[in-house]
Amino acid sequence: MPGLNTSLTPLRFLERAAEVHPDKTAVVDGDRRITYAELAAHVTRLAHALGASGVEVGDRIAYLTSNSFEMLVAHFAVPLAGGVLVAINTRLSVEEVTYICDHSGAVLLVGDAALLEPVRAATFATIREFVETPGVDGDYAGIALPYAELVARGSDAPIPWSVDDEDAVISINYTSGTTGRPKGVMYTHRGAYLASLGAIHHEGFDIETRYLWTLPMFHCNGWCTTWAVTAVAGTHVCLRAVRDDVMWELIDNEGIDHLNGAPTVLVTLATSARAHPLKRSLTATTAGAPPSPTVIAAVRGLGFTLNHVYGLTETYGPYSVCEPGTDWDTLPGDELSRKLARQGVGMLTADRMRVVRTERAADGSLIDVQPDGVEMGEIVMRGNMVMKGYFNDPERTAEAFAGGWFHSGDLGVMHPDGYVQLLDRAKDIIISGGENISTVEVEQALASHPAVREVAVIGVPDDKWGERPKAFVVLVPGTTTTPDELTTHTKAQIASYKAPRSVEFLDELPKTSTGKVRKKELRDAEWGHAVVRIQG
Amino acid sequence: MPGLNTSLTPLRFLERAAEVHPDKTAVVDGDRRITYAELAAHVTRLAHALGASGVEVGDRIAYLTSNSFEMLVAHFAVPLAGGVLVAINTRLSVEEVTYICDHSGAVLLVGDAALLEPVRAATFATIREFVETPGVDGDYAGIALPYAELVARGSDAPIPWSVDDEDAVISINYTSGTTGRPKGVMYTHRGAYLASLGAIHHEGFDIETRYLWTLPMFHCNGWCTTWAVTAVAGTHVCLRAVRDDVMWELIDNEGIDHLNGAPTVLVTLATSARAHPLKRSLTATTAGAPPSPTVIAAVRGLGFTLNHVYGLTETYGPYSVCEPGTDWDTLPGDELSRKLARQGVGMLTADRMRVVRTERAADGSLIDVQPDGVEMGEIVMRGNMVMKGYFNDPERTAEAFAGGWFHSGDLGVMHPDGYVQLLDRAKDIIISGGENISTVEVEQALASHPAVREVAVIGVPDDKWGERPKAFVVLVPGTTTTPDELTTHTKAQIASYKAPRSVEFLDELPKTSTGKVRKKELRDAEWGHAVVRIQG
Repeated sequence: MPGLNTSLTPLRFLERAAEVHPDKTAVVDGDRRITYAELAAHVTRLAHALGASGVEVGDRIAYLTSNSFEMLVAHFAVPLAGGVLVAINTRLSVEEVTYICDHSGAVLLVGDAALLEPVRAATFATIREFVETPGVDGDYAGIALPYAELVARGSDAPIPWSVDDEDAVISINYTSGTTGRPKGVMYTHRGAYLASLGAIHHEGFDIETRYLWTLPMFHCNGWCTTWAVTAVAGTHVCLRAVRDDVMWELIDNEGIDHLNGAPTVLVTLATSARAHPLKRSLTATTAGAPPSPTVIAAVRGLGFTLNHVYGLTETYGPYSVCEPGTDWDTLPGDELSRKLARQGVGMLTADRMRVVRTERAADGSLIDVQPDGVEMGEIVMRGNMVMKGYFNDPERTAEAFAGGWFHSGDLGVMHPDGYVQLLDRAKDIIISGGENISTVEVEQALASHPAVREVAVIGVPDDKWGERPKAFVVLVPGTTTTPDELTTHTKAQIASYKAPRSVEFLDELPKTSTGKVRKKELRDAEWGHAVVRIQG
Repeated sequence: MPGLNTSLTPLRFLERAAEVHPDKTAVVDGDRRITYAELAAHVTRLAHALGASGVEVGDRIAYLTSNSFEMLVAHFAVPLAGGVLVAINTRLSVEEVTYICDHSGAVLLVGDAALLEPVRAATFATIREFVETPGVDGDYAGIALPYAELVARGSDAPIPWSVDDEDAVISINYTSGTTGRPKGVMYTHRGAYLASLGAIHHEGFDIETRYLWTLPMFHCNGWCTTWAVTAVAGTHVCLRAVRDDVMWELIDNEGIDHLNGAPTVLVTLATSARAHPLKRSLTATTAGAPPSPTVIAAVRGLGFTLNHVYGLTETYGPYSVCEPGTDWDTLPGDELSRKLARQGVGMLTADRMRVVRTERAADGSLIDVQPDGVEMGEIVMRGNMVMKGYFNDPERTAEAFAGGWFHSGDLGVMHPDGYVQLLDRAKDIIISGGENISTVEVEQALASHPAVREVAVIGVPDDKWGERPKAFVVLVPGTTTTPDELTTHTKAQIASYKAPRSVEFLDELPKTSTGKVRKKELRDAEWGHAVVRIQG
């Protein structure tokens, strides 16, 4: 048996942290402070408890919890028991939760009382037992088996922190399902391990790291940061609700130096009454639509370092990073903002990122667009940081991997320097008079206006052009502007035909739990539910 | 083909660095400055040239060169051509070089003129062609095919930076062979990739890194730093000879912030007439016998940060790191030095490190010593950062992996906190009156005397006790002491029976090219070549 490889698994990360830094604080959750030795002991005990509850290798365990100690524990205990973690978005409807539990065939559902209560009466096909986690004060509402009683079924006998097959599934994350039924994205131990190492490198995690959980742990397993911060024996600071006052309090009192989240988190931080210059450096890693130059300026002015990444549920969260060039320091602010807004290049542990044409080569292989920053194509990815496939869905898996690469459904361009820029979701692109209009491009032009806090652009019906752009704008409090002023502002930056024909001011934009704007909702209202869009 | 893994390979590191940071300086070698785009282009061209020279997949290519641009190039071009790199220790004899070339079946030998010249006349079994690298001034001595002519056989057609099988061999590194014939240690693409990621994390490499090549690249492929520094798009600063004036000049003028090497490198730096406080932080990662407290104090006083690692050729260089605990800052200097002198814990991408007894369990598995810092056992390692095996040597491979773990031949103890401390090489341990005496323990006691610059302890014949310790000491220039004073100093710290019975002062210790003391040479002189030691 010479030179045996060891299977790559994030379980090794907790084994090592607990051995090397047993007394270091692993988790802060309200008043609770848990060391790495305690975390590993609790994980071992829960893994045994799952086994004692009938969980077998490969069984799915569903969690419906906020960013708590218990949710973090699950990221290690469930795979240590040989199970597969299904962390469910806490803002989904009862129907969506039951669909995910049934589709994944989950045998256990663990949830916060407030989240479990509404779904408790629904009919589940495979759930055998419901478990209620304690509140941050340790109390139980008494609507299901108390978590402490589940844990009490376990024991302290050591379990090897290893797996036989690194390609085994560690978790299934359901897509937000803006179109069609949610899909169950399968992550492997190997992929999670390598994505974590990528995050450590690109986000700069080390043993000093004090990480604030502004990103939901249910979202791509917190972009694998559940595992990455553990690998460096950093400290996880839980955050059960993204409130500006609580965030600022934890940033100040817990010495936070890293957080991740959608741009909306940055907006919340920057516009908080409690906002103030940081006392220590803090790297905010953000993904999704790039924040507006106004917000970038505001958070940078407070001392934040911005790290822009891009990915999807299918890519373990971030796959690419807008890695700053060594000469970017010298760029004028505008140009720097434009560069920082790009989605960038594949991470160290990812493969290259490509932008490809719709048509294929004669041998079926994909053809790259010209790297000219102009020709639009679809962003495709592959390799260790791309999912194993959709659970129990070979058809949609095969479709997603057409040509051997994962198709993101995102449209973008390849710049001459090899950096990818996202232009739009394929389903969001506006076709007006036969011309493609990137809603992201129009949004960025509008967002550069000082009065614009947030903006969303969609295509609305137009008798002459088929579609035309319409903008929904949330203003910076205390400022005013007019649709005409905004249209003029836009036309100064991009082609006139791309400028919005109408502008509507809203108090807030409809968003998903992870901060993405629900454009479908805006579109449905404009088109009427009976109208089928050309682009589907 | 959904969810295909991508084979792990360090080739990806150069692909990425060249794409993301094409204009950044990759290599400084004398007056030459080579960008990442140029490095990747040169590597591609040489890989084609090797193919055009008849190199086929799996062929071994031998290099006998100093730390030059060409040696760094080989770490990527040889595997890109499908070949296996055999980087040979430049201080070996002609007979040793021919043995390694013949044993590995190398088809090409590339070397510096001064190194190639002495071996050129020897008879090689498999070498088809000799290639001479240019001097740092670009000139050729004309004793073999000029490197430029080899490269000219290549072309610029892109070659995918990928391999089909991540477990394929990327390099073979021959052990220094202090006992018996050198063994060819096989590294895989996967192992080299993961060891590189471990080095990045534990040595703190990032895009700002300017790395001075004080460690030979032929030594475990420079502890995989050839690949790791490339992964972060850092700058390699070549160093063709370890001279104190050149090192200090490069440290100052090239803004060096990282270097690796044996403690002797630190001694050379600290005792240089040019030594002065550093202008920027510099992490020196060192392995081998821990430097004496005097040297530690000297280099720390200049501003160096010391990083102590441990490993063997069989473990891709460093396998473990003496990772500082978060409370070590508060320790008194003596206690901190003792902690820092330990070999520590497995790196993030390694497995745990174990210390095991000679006897096995009934099922053949290994038994850990008590983690009490007292019970001595053998250090064993396994997993992705342990070699695939010895090339063409199944017997010695099986022996090394007895019980499923790689046996280091190093003796040590496991401390209660899980940190391993090396006590001795198995073959160096002294058995006196039936008691084990760790030569490392005696050396550390002696080295704490302010007049002692370097020390080596061996066992010498004794009629009564079988063996007794003898010390060879190099004094700090300008200081004096006596054998009696040193013996007294030692007895104040460790048991009397461990103190040296005799002390001999030397101008310098005999060392290998990588700075390890040649104890065998000292022992041979004391025992006479005809005498067989009990421990073999």
